[in-house]
Order: sequence, then C-alpha cells, then structure tokens
Amino acid sequence: MQKVKIALLGFGTVGTGTWQIINDNKDEIVKHCGYEIEIAKVLVQDTSKKRSVDAPAEVFTSNFDDIANDDEIEMVVELMGGIDQAKEYILEAIKRKKHIVTANKALIANYGKEIIEAAENENVKFFYEASVCGGIPIIHSVKESLTGNKIQEIIGIVNGTTNYILTKMTKEKVDFKSVLKEAQDLGYAEADPTADIEGYDAAHKLTILASLAFSSPVNFDEVYREGISKIDKIDIEYADQMGYIIKLLAIGKEKDGEIELRVHPTFISKNHPLASVNDSFNAVFLKGNAVGELMFYGRGAGDLPTGSAVVGDIVSILKNRHNPYSLTQFNNNLPNKKVKDMNEVTCEYYVRLMVDDQPGVLGKIASCFGKNDVSLSSVIQKGENVRPVALVFVTHYTSEGNVQRAIKEIKAMGEVIEVSNIIRLENGKK
Amino acid sequence: MQKVKIALLGFGTVGTGTWQIINDNKDEIVKHCGYEIEIAKVLVQDTSKKRSVDAPAEVFTSNFDDIANDDEIEMVVELMGGIDQAKEYILEAIKRKKHIVTANKALIANYGKEIIEAAENENVKFFYEASVCGGIPIIHSVKESLTGNKIQEIIGIVNGTTNYILTKMTKEKVDFKSVLKEAQDLGYAEADPTADIEGYDAAHKLTILASLAFSSPVNFDEVYREGISKIDKIDIEYADQMGYIIKLLAIGKEKDGEIELRVHPTFISKNHPLASVNDSFNAVFLKGNAVGELMFYGRGAGDLPTGSAVVGDIVSILKNRHNPYSLTQFNNNLPNKKVKDMNEVTCEYYVRLMVDDQPGVLGKIASCFGKNDVSLSSVIQKGENVRPVALVFVTHYTSEGNVQRAIKEIKAMGEVIEVSNIIRLENGKK
Repeated sequence: MQKVKIALLGFGTVGTGTWQIINDNKDEIVKHCGYEIEIAKVLVQDTSKKRSVDAPAEVFTSNFDDIANDDEIEMVVELMGGIDQAKEYILEAIKRKKHIVTANKALIANYGKEIIEAAENENVKFFYEASVCGGIPIIHSVKESLTGNKIQEIIGIVNGTTNYILTKMTKEKVDFKSVLKEAQDLGYAEADPTADIEGYDAAHKLTILASLAFSSPVNFDEVYREGISKIDKIDIEYADQMGYIIKLLAIGKEKDGEIELRVHPTFISKNHPLASVNDSFNAVFLKGNAVGELMFYGRGAGDLPTGSAVVGDIVSILKNRHNPYSLTQFNNNLPNKKVKDMNEVTCEYYVRLMVDDQPGVLGKIASCFGKNDVSLSSVIQKGENVRPVALVFVTHYTSEGNVQRAIKEIKAMGEVIEVSNIIRLENGKK
Repeated sequence: MQKVKIALLGFGTVGTGTWQIINDNKDEIVKHCGYEIEIAKVLVQDTSKKRSVDAPAEVFTSNFDDIANDDEIEMVVELMGGIDQAKEYILEAIKRKKHIVTANKALIANYGKEIIEAAENENVKFFYEASVCGGIPIIHSVKESLTGNKIQEIIGIVNGTTNYILTKMTKEKVDFKSVLKEAQDLGYAEADPTADIEGYDAAHKLTILASLAFSSPVNFDEVYREGISKIDKIDIEYADQMGYIIKLLAIGKEKDGEIELRVHPTFISKNHPLASVNDSFNAVFLKGNAVGELMFYGRGAGDLPTGSAVVGDIVSILKNRHNPYSLTQFNNNLPNKKVKDMNEVTCEYYVRLMVDDQPGVLGKIASCFGKNDVSLSSVIQKGENVRPVALVFVTHYTSEGNVQRAIKEIKAMGEVIEVSNIIRLENGKK
C-alpha cells in the first residue's frame, strides 16, 4: 500500500476529528483512493499538551519549518483558524509545492483570490469544502456537478448556532437572551457570540458560495449583514400566525447579470424545504435553470462532520494530484458582476410598530407607506384603547430604499412610540 | 475557445434537455471548464422526425458507425435507454477510446461491472450521475466527497411517479387506482407503469447507490422488492394516526460487514427529513460514521434536471480526461459483502387484518405472534360486533422470518378473513 504523508496545522476540534477519521476509517479511504494517508506532522502551540486522541508524541511540533522543510510531506491541511498566520503558512506551503486543504472560511472570504492564484502558479491543488457547512458537500457540488446550470439563487441556513437559538425560541416560546445564555452554557455558542449572532460567519460562507455559484469574484464587504439579536419572541408568534418561520438566511440571487447578497433574519413559508431545517442543522437550497430546486441538508459543524469534508478533500487531491487541469478555480479571471446596492433590493417586509392608539394613526401610517411606493398586503392590530398598541404591516414587493424612507418618516410621527422590528420575507416568488 | 466534439445516442426527453442546456448555458459551461461543447452527431431512429428543439438536420444520423468512426468525437453520451443495444454501442465507443456518459440505470445495475472494466482497460472515463435521481448529485457526492466515511445507511425516495401517487393519496385521501389513472392521463406515469409502481426502477437505483456507498459490488437480483399497488388509503390513515407517512423507500444498510437491500412501502415518522419530500421530488438520506445525517433533495427526473446531471458529467470528464487516475471505480476488485437474506432482516411491522369479531380472536392472534417471537407494541381494533372487523398490530423489532411464519399461521385461522397488508416501519433506531 502506497503511503502519502500529510501535515495538519492545528489540532483543535476539527484537527482531532480529522485525525480520528483518518485512523478509524483507514480501510474505506484506501478503497476509495488506493492510498494510505499518514499524518506525519501536526503543528500545535504546546507539544506537551494532553490530547483527546491517541496520537504519538513525535508527530507534534511547534515549528512550522519542520513541515515546510520536509519534502516527503505532500499536503498541508490548515485547521488552525485565524487569518494572518494561517495565510502565511499556506502561502509558504504552496511555495514548497505542497497541496492545500483548509476549513478556514474567514481566510478564503478575505484572501481566497490571492491564495488560489498562488496555488495555480505553483500548480498545486487548493480545496476548501470544509469552509462552508461542515459535512455538506455543497462546494464540490457547485464546482463539479452543477456546472451545466445558470444558478439563479442560493439560500442557506449556514450557521448552526443561530439556527439552534431560533429553533428553540420557536418551539419553546422563549426569548433570545435566555436561549443564548443556555447555548453558551452548553458550549453551542461562544463566550463572545458576535461572529455567529450578528451574521459575520454566515456572510463569510455566502461570500464563498456566491462566488462559486455566480461565477464572479465576490468581496466579503459587499454582503449586507444583519443578525438575530433583535428578534423578539413576539415576531416569531406573528410569523407563525401568518404561516411563516423565522430563519437566519444567507441569500444570494442573480438576475439580469446583477447579484444580490444578504444575510438577515427572514420570514420563510412553512412549506419551504428550508423551513423544517431545525436545531443546529444546516441546509443550502438552490435554484438552477436546468436542475430546478435542489437542497442539501446536514451537519454544518463539529469535529467529525467537518473532518468528513476535510478528508473528502484530501482524497480528492490524491486522485487529482497528477491531473494537469486546475480544479481550484475561484473565478479569478472572470469579470466582477455588479452587486446590487441594498437600497435597490426588492422584498416583501414585515414591520412591527408600537403606537399610541389615537384616532387616525393607522391611516396616517398607511398613507406614509403609500406615499413612499410601499403598498401593503396586510395589517394586524391587536388590542384597542390601550397604550401602547402593536401594529403589524406586511408589504407587497418593494425596494429596501422605499421601505427605509417610509420608516424614517413613520419614526418621526408623534403617535409612534417605536419601530420595533423590520424583517424581510422570502417566498421564492422573485 | 477550444471546442470539444461529443455525440448523443438518443434524442428523447433527456437528449433534448441536454441539447438545450449545452446551447442555452454555453457561457456558464465555458466558465466552468474552459471548453465549448459541440454536439456533432445525434443518433436517432428517424432522422426526418420533427424535433422540439432547433437542431440542424445534419447532426442527425441513424447509423452508429458515423459516430464510432469519427475520431474527432471524444465523448459519447448514451441517452437512448434499453439494455442490449445501448450496451453494444457503449462497448464499441469505449474500444474507440471515447469517454462515456450515461443516464441508463438499468444498464448499469445489470452490466455496470463489465462496462466499467472495459472503460478502465481502455483508459477512458465512464460517468453516470444521471442514472440515479436525475439532477441530485448523489453519486458524485458518495464517490468524491464522502470518501472519509463508513456509510451506515442510505435511504432514498428515488422514484418520482410513486412519490407523486403516494403524496396525492395522502393529501386527498383518494385510492391508488384513481390516482394512478390520473397520473397516466397527465403523463406522469407510463401506460405500463410496472417498472415504477412495482419498485423495479427504485431497485435499479439502489443497486447503483449501494454498490458505491458500501464499497461492494451489488447484484440487482439481491435487492428485495415490493411495490405500492397494494397500499390502501386506509393504511395511509392508520399511518397518519400513528404519526407516520407512507413512502416507497429504497433502503440500504450495512452492519457488521453485512448489507441489507430492500425496496418497499414504509411507514416513516413525520419528523424524519424524508417525510416532507412530496410530489414527484426525490431525496436521498444517508448516515455516515463521520458526516452524520445528510440529505439531498431535488428533481429526480425530467428533461432539464436529468440533463443537468448529464452536462455536469460531461464537464467533469473534460476536466479529468488527462487525469491518469481512474475515477470510474465501481468497486470491481473489492470482495462482495454478504447481502442478508430478507428473512434475517429485522424491522418493526404494521399488520392489518380483517377478522370475524368472535370472542377470543384477538388473544389467539396475539398468542400466535408471541409464539413466533414477534412482540407487539400496539393493537388497534375499530368497530365491535360487526363482520368483518379490522385489527391493526404494530410489532417491536423482529425478523422478517418470524413475522412471515406468524402470518402464515394467522392466515390459516378460521376467524381470519384476510391479512390485508403488512408494511415495514423505518424510524432510524436500528
């Protein structure tokens, strides 16, 4: 059996998961590619630290040069996270003609173009399936299986932490803060949950997916981003009454050569395939002009699911390392498609207000929407002659710019106590 | 732009879909692989027949030699269906060093091993994503992305016609025959619906999937097969009351080195991800020891969805034709894993009987189950002092052999008018 030597950078959750898979599923891997994979070196900060898997002491090193200088190591698997150091190591490994596998979404979302250019120049492979939705083979599918399609939309539940929180808020009718606290206690959410809760993680993943799906380089800062911290359990109740569920969606659409890119909490119909994706599961739904509707569902994080994607990439590289065709394509040489300004994006909107219940207030607000070209599809008023009273409006399709202008005027009205929330709808119509 | 010439064999639904995609999505395809695909020849029976797409008359030929002898044609795409003729053409094309793409599940399920051996000998690629579940990239995912996994189970709704019929029976509470008739009138079911209705089509697909998932050659005749024609709307009602939905499932499982392979109508829990796969949609659910639960959902048939998979394969071959690594792997050289005899398979069972409501009949039947090591988890009796009365039993896990022995004895009882139906449950516990 021919052995191939690889090195891991980092030995946290995904690193140990990858170690475990390569050792436990050795037979399967050999059947699939004909090679035995040997993890010859693992870069860690502290080589004496006790590990949860039974790895021999001599593979650990805290010196990257031990890996870079070892010509027998053909592949470097970057699982350390962070940006600058990871980038430096990867570029150095590429220079040494080592193939690269990485799970680092932030790195690719920010420097994918540069790294892939370097990999192509040195004729090494660069695979990154694990960077988006853990074990779900979405990147491979878009790059390899859906190549006959013009992809029109790609909509994902790509962050497990926020999906866990929203599912729990929905099923148990509890508020955001208490669920977040519980998720932190259980280790499902980080001590500083900003990256998940405020949608940065989802926006990184959308950057990568959209770039592949729409064959256009996408910059992370072009993604509109809004998190779930403002979602109140009352919003979830209104959604339920109207036949919707609230999910944090990463939405990419292409129409007439322009792209929409946005991450925000969204009302989706209970009949949509994404609506039943619960707990910490991830899913990516897409529409192609040939394949129609397609959805991929699975575990988006965790040691073994993410390790599954890492090992899949390692095996793919082993099968392809003598393939002269570059498979790393990140659409480097393609023209940038225009990303729509958020104000030009059209949606339906749910708007919840608290107002003084004075005669004429509903009419005044409705007129203000109308004046700004926002037409209403439904209004719900609950309670009467109380202060404050909740008013909920759902609009027809209109532009973000129109809605924001109307909201600004409505906020200024004396009768309006607060604009409690504005949430976009997604029903697949446009 | 470099052009690559290919030929299509057959120009029915999938052939015209493939033609349309290659022409309409030319830009996308070029972006993905750098080549322009030219369909240089199309083999048809009648070259003068009017076609639904605007293909120039000179590409059509009724003589396969025009394709075989044309050295500029690098790839043959077999979409004619049937077995013997298709096999002959494919083997001849392989001899001429042409790469092969096919959507022909029956051919692969029966002769996959032989054809792939031929392709490997001549060093040409042989891809067949379109043979299972149309546009869903399940084969590619199992072969390329999940290679780090020991796949423990693969369960699919892989036949759109039967899923359409069962969905309609469930939602509209109508009986099998009238839905089948309607489906035939609408063109969703064939005039002779046997291949779909009786599960042959699903068994072909399971043969292919299981062979890849369990890394073992699988013979079509080792798949246990039962269709949906005996499903009564009353069974669907009972299922609903118990929290289940009835689906025709293709089930493959591996445990302790042995494989289970079966296609039959199944009670699945309404909470299972497959339960909400409705109408003519397909889905494949799998469990891997690394990736955990994964599901792929989409259109399993139709001109463009299946064409999407065909074009994906064409593009993959273009990227891989100079890759010395054989990617066609059908586990030819691996040992056959033992396929369990159906009598050894263990399930939970739903059994519906019609009996004379005489004193002691329930006890007599329950005792008979017990004597045969079938323990019961629930009994439903509806109506009293009527003739006949319906009795429904649900068993705990037990072997097929035990159940069949019990049923044989129960059938012989004087009080038992008929054993109306026996349906297996699938709840993911074992």
